[in-house]
Amino acid sequence: MTTAKKKPIIAISMGDAAGIGPEIVTKCLKEPGMYEHSRPLVIGDYGIMARVVEQMKLPLRVHSISSPVEALFTEGTIDCMDTGQLDISQVVPGKLSSKAGRASLKYVIRAVELALDGSIHAILTAPVNKEAINRAGILFSDQTGYIGKLSGVEHTGLVLISGKVHLVYCTGHMPLREACKMITREHVLERIRFIISSLFELGIERPKIAVCALNPHASDGGIFGHEEKEHIIPAIEDAKSEGLNVEGPVTTETVWLRSKEGEFDGVLSMTHDHGNIGIKLIGQGPVFTYQGGLPIIRTSVGHGTAFDIAGTYTADHSVLAAAFDFAVHLALRKMG
Amino acid sequence: MTTAKKKPIIAISMGDAAGIGPEIVTKCLKEPGMYEHSRPLVIGDYGIMARVVEQMKLPLRVHSISSPVEALFTEGTIDCMDTGQLDISQVVPGKLSSKAGRASLKYVIRAVELALDGSIHAILTAPVNKEAINRAGILFSDQTGYIGKLSGVEHTGLVLISGKVHLVYCTGHMPLREACKMITREHVLERIRFIISSLFELGIERPKIAVCALNPHASDGGIFGHEEKEHIIPAIEDAKSEGLNVEGPVTTETVWLRSKEGEFDGVLSMTHDHGNIGIKLIGQGPVFTYQGGLPIIRTSVGHGTAFDIAGTYTADHSVLAAAFDFAVHLALRKMG
Repeated sequence: MTTAKKKPIIAISMGDAAGIGPEIVTKCLKEPGMYEHSRPLVIGDYGIMARVVEQMKLPLRVHSISSPVEALFTEGTIDCMDTGQLDISQVVPGKLSSKAGRASLKYVIRAVELALDGSIHAILTAPVNKEAINRAGILFSDQTGYIGKLSGVEHTGLVLISGKVHLVYCTGHMPLREACKMITREHVLERIRFIISSLFELGIERPKIAVCALNPHASDGGIFGHEEKEHIIPAIEDAKSEGLNVEGPVTTETVWLRSKEGEFDGVLSMTHDHGNIGIKLIGQGPVFTYQGGLPIIRTSVGHGTAFDIAGTYTADHSVLAAAFDFAVHLALRKMG
Repeated sequence: MTTAKKKPIIAISMGDAAGIGPEIVTKCLKEPGMYEHSRPLVIGDYGIMARVVEQMKLPLRVHSISSPVEALFTEGTIDCMDTGQLDISQVVPGKLSSKAGRASLKYVIRAVELALDGSIHAILTAPVNKEAINRAGILFSDQTGYIGKLSGVEHTGLVLISGKVHLVYCTGHMPLREACKMITREHVLERIRFIISSLFELGIERPKIAVCALNPHASDGGIFGHEEKEHIIPAIEDAKSEGLNVEGPVTTETVWLRSKEGEFDGVLSMTHDHGNIGIKLIGQGPVFTYQGGLPIIRTSVGHGTAFDIAGTYTADHSVLAAAFDFAVHLALRKMG
């Protein structure tokens, strides 16, 4: 094939139809130059996408397709694989809907299937709503675990990215008290291996990782807690004996200043907030996510469905756009 | 009196003689213009200060005095109230010494006495070493509590300052697990009152305070922890009913971006690191401390004695210098 082969097909799953997903996907696809280096398409609902285009009065056409081969990949046209799930009169922006929830998962399933069979080169997921999916009677925690299962992998997780800064949490969405109890030697070591293999997937050959402390002043020799001595330091030693390039425990109040100076390729934080405070303050631009450990390429946004502003068409699509660009970059790299 | 009266007398306690205290105090006092707006003196040990000046080959003279009235307050001269505690041959830079520990407390006691009787206008404390003091058989936790007791106040604490950013912790130097247990309605309310009264002391008439969350996403309505619902929100409501200008719980990952934009006069963080990560990343310049709730003015540095570099004369005195300038500013304000 010719030049076209060099342009990866990126499938964007539309996310929850009642959230800001359809809007930010549309805004992203009308950015200039989107079709220059890639061939983007949406996996979602034709009616929902058409309504957004109409209500935003955009000079775009939504093109309903049933397979990537039917796509036009032309500026001014949004190719949308219509899963035919939703009656648009029943989907009200900002209103929780179990039907929209159920449909949002169908888009993801379809995207993963297409990526696994090689019909597309990468997937980018817009936000789904956990409660909407659960109300449809589906046991669901998050897209990351769900996509892991669909792809047949066990050890997977998210890497938060902003510019050259990469962050993985040891513990995520849970009470801080519970997070403290989760800090075990085994778990920290598994997360060290995960961040290193993920950064390797991103093309960093021998990533240098800062493993953060949990306690103030990294417990100051054991005065302010025992997790460093009993779990984090042994995990770091284990990792070093595996030849991994890790340093720590680094106090959270110094790790971000050092990361800003470019000392580390990645930061492994013990808690969600120890990580997020830092990456948001030192990050260069939007913070998006990459899912490591998969046989396919998946990037995503860090934010949610934002029901509170859905339908006002004021949502910011910069995170989605950054995640899109990164998916293109990774796909091009994989294509060689 | 004349112009001289407009220049406040700032007493700098020398800190632990084996740490970087004597060095950074000396470096601070040789900064140009130190004597233009203030009358600084050291409360410490003549021999130790003279040794630093000699070893650093500085064109300074150390002038031993026994009372502020004997001070010369002249550029090129360091006025040092000699407490006569230490045999300098026994004080080795970087080596823990119970004698240096005991002496470091004497400087603080003398400084507080002079401030309480009005002989000086403000005190600035160089770092002491807790272990050195404890080895001298003295039960001691930190200068803040100690100075509170010397001053006869119960409710006191530190405000961290960097530019226009002010931070108070709800919990400080303790294991993170313990910190979680300390978050009670009563304690959070007491800390809200403390940060507000402290900022009032600093001249901010009606400070707007962000009260941080403890858990990720401020527990997201109770899914990720109960402290917000059971303790932090009730404490905020209590504070509001007292007419205090507070907002929260604000997630830690957003509070610093908003503080950077100038939305808050002060931030009350639930943990040491939730505060320190942020203020160090958004702060404008060095982070120093002000002790609120005292009848006297006290500023300090946030760092410790740094035994590892003591005697190499490579220590950075910028935090001490910033704390000095702030003490002068507060003293001038109080003098009217």
